[in-house]
Amino acid sequence: VPAVVDHETRRTALAEVAADLIAKGGAEAATVRAVAAAAGVSTKAVTHYFSDKRALMLLTYRHAAMRSQARTEASQQMSRRDVAALLCALLPLDPAVERDWRVWFSFWGIAVADSEFTTEQSAQVRAFTEQIALCLAADPSCAGFDEGAQSSAASLVLAALLGIVAQAMFDPQEWPPERQIEAVNEALARLVGRAVVNGEE
Amino acid sequence: VPAVVDHETRRTALAEVAADLIAKGGAEAATVRAVAAAAGVSTKAVTHYFSDKRALMLLTYRHAAMRSQARTEASQQMSRRDVAALLCALLPLDPAVERDWRVWFSFWGIAVADSEFTTEQSAQVRAFTEQIALCLAADPSCAGFDEGAQSSAASLVLAALLGIVAQAMFDPQEWPPERQIEAVNEALARLVGRAVVNGEE
Repeated sequence: VPAVVDHETRRTALAEVAADLIAKGGAEAATVRAVAAAAGVSTKAVTHYFSDKRALMLLTYRHAAMRSQARTEASQQMSRRDVAALLCALLPLDPAVERDWRVWFSFWGIAVADSEFTTEQSAQVRAFTEQIALCLAADPSCAGFDEGAQSSAASLVLAALLGIVAQAMFDPQEWPPERQIEAVNEALARLVGRAVVNGEE
Repeated sequence: VPAVVDHETRRTALAEVAADLIAKGGAEAATVRAVAAAAGVSTKAVTHYFSDKRALMLLTYRHAAMRSQARTEASQQMSRRDVAALLCALLPLDPAVERDWRVWFSFWGIAVADSEFTTEQSAQVRAFTEQIALCLAADPSCAGFDEGAQSSAASLVLAALLGIVAQAMFDPQEWPPERQIEAVNEALARLVGRAVVNGEE
């Protein structure tokens, strides 16, 4: 069904344009008009896919989440169920991932006062926490974890990732790629390794 | 000098009004006009303190940071140089702290595409990391840390706090106050306790 493919392709292309605009100019920059201008299409061609600025933001966020999902999946194909690879796939080490974090932080800025966006954000976080928990469950170093320990470890591992990225994004000078990777590995060694020591006792 | 006091008092009052508006409606809601209306003053009375929306956001962020500073200082007077008390003072356990986190996340949303805001954010993070490092230096359980270990532990402790808050703010149902406190204590036990084990070897 070529028409459907076309629809998806066009929507994805517009979400890409919107992500670029948000990363460069913040959420306010991603107006329907600006997306149309940057994509070289009419405003009507944009509103066909996104009715307004809010819908544009929501879809751009979802597309960034889909790209992130693709990145974490790719990391698990190279090294099956490895939590370090999973987290490192989401570090802003290259411009594409960095751009998506800019989209996410912009989205958070709106989500603090928007219940639909809040729900979207918490659903993404819950899904990613489960992905981390699956990695931990498959990790021989976490064999001593019961379900509760696994779930709380997954939340802390996610917390470490979010907090490292939040620092790195706003202070790239202090957080070159190697420091980000080192911090993730150190966090994992301490957050997960620690419990292993307990588990082995 | 009553005139100066008056100036500071009025500016603080306007920053409070702006923080309320941002927490409720996001950064876009805090226009000069809206702040004037909510404060019951003229637009001119607001532009006397904040020339535009951007200045309003910056000052509101700084005021939120000052309130946070006051909270962490108070926590250290009750329990001298205690890192758990320091972090818990910044958990969104009551509406006042929660409101300030909404202001911060709104600010981050703008800072992703604004170099002056980015600099402001990284300066605040650096100062707070130093505050955590001072706590760790004074903590007998961190006696085995050298300066490098202390500084990287401080960054990871801050990462954990930021990541726990980022999860809690967007999923309050899953993160009641007791879980937030538990997560902070667990993170500290693992991030700092772990290194102590190494230090004692």
